[in-house]
Amino acid sequence: MKGNIFYAQSGGVTPVINATAAGLIDAYFKNKNYFGKLYVGKNGILGALREELIDISSESRAELALLKKTPGGAFGSCRLKLNDYRKSKKDFQRLYDVFKKHNIKYFFYNGGGDSQDTTNKISKYFREKNYPIICIGLPKTIDNDLPITDNCPGYGSVAKYIATSTLEASLDVKSMSETSTKIFILEVMGRHAGWLAASAGAVKDLAEDPPHLILFPEVKFNEKLFLKNVREITKKYGYCVIVASEGIKNSRNVFLSDSGLKDSFGHAQLGGVAPVLSKLITNKLKYKVHWAVSDYLQRSARHIGSKVDVEQAYSLGKKAITYAKKEISDVMLTIKNISSKKNYKWSISHTNLDKVANVEKMLPRNFIKKNGFEITKPCKEYILNLIQGEDYPAYDNGYPKYSRLKCKTIKKKLASYKLK
Amino acid sequence: MKGNIFYAQSGGVTPVINATAAGLIDAYFKNKNYFGKLYVGKNGILGALREELIDISSESRAELALLKKTPGGAFGSCRLKLNDYRKSKKDFQRLYDVFKKHNIKYFFYNGGGDSQDTTNKISKYFREKNYPIICIGLPKTIDNDLPITDNCPGYGSVAKYIATSTLEASLDVKSMSETSTKIFILEVMGRHAGWLAASAGAVKDLAEDPPHLILFPEVKFNEKLFLKNVREITKKYGYCVIVASEGIKNSRNVFLSDSGLKDSFGHAQLGGVAPVLSKLITNKLKYKVHWAVSDYLQRSARHIGSKVDVEQAYSLGKKAITYAKKEISDVMLTIKNISSKKNYKWSISHTNLDKVANVEKMLPRNFIKKNGFEITKPCKEYILNLIQGEDYPAYDNGYPKYSRLKCKTIKKKLASYKLK
Repeated sequence: MKGNIFYAQSGGVTPVINATAAGLIDAYFKNKNYFGKLYVGKNGILGALREELIDISSESRAELALLKKTPGGAFGSCRLKLNDYRKSKKDFQRLYDVFKKHNIKYFFYNGGGDSQDTTNKISKYFREKNYPIICIGLPKTIDNDLPITDNCPGYGSVAKYIATSTLEASLDVKSMSETSTKIFILEVMGRHAGWLAASAGAVKDLAEDPPHLILFPEVKFNEKLFLKNVREITKKYGYCVIVASEGIKNSRNVFLSDSGLKDSFGHAQLGGVAPVLSKLITNKLKYKVHWAVSDYLQRSARHIGSKVDVEQAYSLGKKAITYAKKEISDVMLTIKNISSKKNYKWSISHTNLDKVANVEKMLPRNFIKKNGFEITKPCKEYILNLIQGEDYPAYDNGYPKYSRLKCKTIKKKLASYKLK
Repeated sequence: MKGNIFYAQSGGVTPVINATAAGLIDAYFKNKNYFGKLYVGKNGILGALREELIDISSESRAELALLKKTPGGAFGSCRLKLNDYRKSKKDFQRLYDVFKKHNIKYFFYNGGGDSQDTTNKISKYFREKNYPIICIGLPKTIDNDLPITDNCPGYGSVAKYIATSTLEASLDVKSMSETSTKIFILEVMGRHAGWLAASAGAVKDLAEDPPHLILFPEVKFNEKLFLKNVREITKKYGYCVIVASEGIKNSRNVFLSDSGLKDSFGHAQLGGVAPVLSKLITNKLKYKVHWAVSDYLQRSARHIGSKVDVEQAYSLGKKAITYAKKEISDVMLTIKNISSKKNYKWSISHTNLDKVANVEKMLPRNFIKKNGFEITKPCKEYILNLIQGEDYPAYDNGYPKYSRLKCKTIKKKLASYKLK
């Protein structure tokens, strides 16, 4: 009896996590003689715990064909970190019961650092139970902070969005700067690592070009130095464009977004470093400021997906099937930079899951200029490689035609399970 | 001696105001035997007052060819409303001196309501002075609030961006809603008219589809009713997507963005209705909320320009030259809907400047559903017409290749002028 596959999407979604699903599904259909069913967990690992399994063959082929170009997590994702399996035996026992009942012999988990950790724990638990299962982690995160892999799928597309949006908004503020807004602030995601903020720097060639100041979480925010720079740049070029990571902290190690603003009840207003910076500039320098917070827009902007990124994400899904057939387990697939000289080339490789869990990759020190506000040439080259090429979705009636799956789950075979 | 042309860009820029400039420039080069020089004012009417004139023939043809697909105002814009010419004689006398000195016989001003008013005033002043000049207003505003014209160039592209972004972010939040964020709020521009917020509704087909709630400036914000709807929608569909105009007001006619938030100095925090709504939902309903403020990103998102919008903007520029050759003056060019049955068709027409000045076109009452939170079928059809087709810019190295003009001004012939 051929083993069934379980695949699920986990953590914050990306513009291309569905491309990885599409790669895996396409390869599965080409290898149907080798595998049993392909089940997708509804809402990540929750789908396994709740026995909410989507049989991929019940979805329309036409909608599945759109998956490669659809943002979000088409099967639902979740933020649920499994505890150590010695500490939460019940959950792991449940996973064992569900996988055994549904003859699941392949476990593919598509996510960031926490999800790789989950995959690692599941693999170890099943080995202890002597249940043979291939466990493969598929990387995904717009934060680009997974170790060992040269980059993470999702990052390239969001970087392309941020680079383009920064360039566009800069042209706007430049036009208006003589009599109106002189400062524009774009807040981007990145609690700990500045990869996304750095991506705005890809469009800068000359000193006068925007973005003029990038605020990285890796660099402590120095108010005095920041204001000095804003003033000087605005005097010199007539306007100033700032790209700020949501996670920048002041010298007391407090998130800037947590400091200062209070609502009418006196509660601290969380979220939004851009309005805090805006207020600071307005108060201290008296310039007119505009600010944007791109939030989920950046994370879902599939309409401006990077071709390189989409191809990497899709290949990872396809390769998962190849690895499974070779019975390679306990690994996370990785993207390897195999460039020779100028042309960027990459291939899919892998690393042991033990090496990935709980390691966050920050921007290397040599990617940030000594002034603390700009990216270096190696950083720019790294980013440019990942934003190459356009991979547009089809449009229907003026807006993108994205996949609409039914996500109907199969009939349950076990009693329902209560999560604590 | 052939008369020279003065063209300038005014007010908040749009993704396609440069397409209008491109249409005008292309038509000018084809009619060079008829006209003298084409001067573009640097920073709108300021360029005329300061005698800062860009001779278009001094710009590279290659860069001018990129203009049609470049956002922002390539020649600089300004926010400067001229007073009545009886009240600010000095400024008008200066315009007269500059235009006379440079033999300007054609005045094209590309802007919104205030700019049409400026064009009208200039025309009347020059007539009093018996100076023959053709004055033509070219419409432009993402707010879509100019009267008589069926729509305004700029609106279609921003509407396409908002519709697409809403759809994309909705797919994201839907994926996460089981264990994390359930509510997403997108703040869009629109101080008085809800045209931009309405555009999000173009992607909604079924009741369950996002956006679930649109907040229009035309409808007073009712906190109780709003929260009731958010709760019901979230219970029913698992998540709720809200698109809010920056200009919504409460029952006391106060901007929501002005109410409540105070900074550490006790000053009211201006700008940002999304964080206010977010805080309200978090406090009252305890849902996890994400919010985005697209600000200038929406206004400059040329990478997702609407083909219909770009063609209309370009045609308006081209037609300006045709009108000038016919010596038609004191008009604003308009877009006329000449659809027969199903297919959207349009043509360029015109209206007297007197009819345009100081009139703002709000969303018609029959474009908003009775519940106050959705658009009607006629509204959706209106919007869909304007977002049809994609008009992508060229990409170079991963991001759009936008025009870089020199904007070098010609040698001044007059003494410098001090603006009050």
